[in-house]
Amino acid sequence: MDFLEKLKTVQRRNNSLLSIGLDTDIRKIPPSLRTHKDPQGEFNRRIIEATEDLVCAYKLNIAFYESSGERMWRTIHGTLSHIAPGIITIGDGKRGDIGSSSEHQARSLCGDFRFTASTVNPYMGKDSVEPFIARAEQGAFILALTSNKGSEDFQYLRVSGRPLYEHVVAKALKWNAKKNIGLVVGATHPGELGRIRSMAPELPILIPGIGAQQGDLEASVRYGCDNEGLLAVINVGRSIIYASRGEDFAEKAREAALEFRDRMNVFRKKYFG
Amino acid sequence: MDFLEKLKTVQRRNNSLLSIGLDTDIRKIPPSLRTHKDPQGEFNRRIIEATEDLVCAYKLNIAFYESSGERMWRTIHGTLSHIAPGIITIGDGKRGDIGSSSEHQARSLCGDFRFTASTVNPYMGKDSVEPFIARAEQGAFILALTSNKGSEDFQYLRVSGRPLYEHVVAKALKWNAKKNIGLVVGATHPGELGRIRSMAPELPILIPGIGAQQGDLEASVRYGCDNEGLLAVINVGRSIIYASRGEDFAEKAREAALEFRDRMNVFRKKYFG
Repeated sequence: MDFLEKLKTVQRRNNSLLSIGLDTDIRKIPPSLRTHKDPQGEFNRRIIEATEDLVCAYKLNIAFYESSGERMWRTIHGTLSHIAPGIITIGDGKRGDIGSSSEHQARSLCGDFRFTASTVNPYMGKDSVEPFIARAEQGAFILALTSNKGSEDFQYLRVSGRPLYEHVVAKALKWNAKKNIGLVVGATHPGELGRIRSMAPELPILIPGIGAQQGDLEASVRYGCDNEGLLAVINVGRSIIYASRGEDFAEKAREAALEFRDRMNVFRKKYFG
Repeated sequence: MDFLEKLKTVQRRNNSLLSIGLDTDIRKIPPSLRTHKDPQGEFNRRIIEATEDLVCAYKLNIAFYESSGERMWRTIHGTLSHIAPGIITIGDGKRGDIGSSSEHQARSLCGDFRFTASTVNPYMGKDSVEPFIARAEQGAFILALTSNKGSEDFQYLRVSGRPLYEHVVAKALKWNAKKNIGLVVGATHPGELGRIRSMAPELPILIPGIGAQQGDLEASVRYGCDNEGLLAVINVGRSIIYASRGEDFAEKAREAALEFRDRMNVFRKKYFG
């Protein structure tokens, strides 16, 4: 199934815009798991089992696994093996290089791990993105306007009267021959999100920054969705996976996920009926 | 020793601006090595042993190791263990993320592997770069103007009358409190390299694009160096490591490296006496 259709299908089936960010920091998981042979993987498995009916996606920031060294492969493969096939998996690596090197990056994220989608940094241009969008059933979320403070350094610079990130959106639309490109727009920029949605009415938008980064949930739903109330992929990480730092972490993660999903759905109903 | 001093020291000692790009593609190494328990690592070891008196740096594009999966750690650690301490090692990962995630990326490249320097994508701004420049003895090369075709998509966009990449250079200068920031400027853009060198007279510039990408070697030396004829780190990958695809690959790599180093030094002598 094509990427876009797969996303819409799971968003409808689970009635959810929620993506859970499995940015699992080995230093933050309950002590009892630290002696497990794969602490991050076991933590993820329990979060997934407790929440998989509530989400449209799981996003794994690759950096959190790279920093654990060699066991990264086992942990990521193990984690992905617990996620049901219909759910979107996002390999959040912020990759991008000259074409021949990007192919190797894509071989890892799209080929080896088989993530449904990757995140890609646009700075190096079209050939850096292409290997990630070579197959229609896998997509790429291109960084447009990120959730962090540093987004102010370059992304807002004005080019021909429009901020740089809008030029990124325009190029993303142009490169989207296989209809498998999405955008990353931080929930910390609600006004800009609305403008980006109007420029790109049919692109999935991955929206990080809810929770610890204090992004705007109502605006993320209102401006992040297409006109059917879909295609916003609203990521929540720390506020869900560390809802409890104790042994009840999975149960508390479910409660937090349910609350986020339902709050999103209240806003969906308000704006999309 | 601080990063900048370390770079100058090895450039003087080996009389070399040459960086060898160990972008070792498992499909391109001699058949006899493919049965080795670590084919890429063994290939790299033999290239390093044949060339280490001729270089100032080795650059490992992380993508070429990620695409080999789990053995990446062994291969990179093994490769780095063969490189003498005075030589600069560059972890070419084009990383960058929100600050808390960039810290995990840096923990891998600067902490686990202990590369002397990393390459970083500037699109996400200051907090995405900071973890890579936290220690004065390790540096970061920030992508300014890349060697690929895609560099035309965004890097040349004009902001207040100047191309975007010059704004990146200006920010890099501003962020350089520890004097450990460098820039990446492709050898395929010789005119722009001169302008960037004049803006940043004291920053190391990593210059990819010589050889397979047909960048301009004379201009890379002339415009890439500081006024002492140092601080250009001119990377050559495929033209050296695949100089022969046979069993004599290491010997032929040495011949190619010697030729590149000496050609660079002819231009150094011409322009810097």
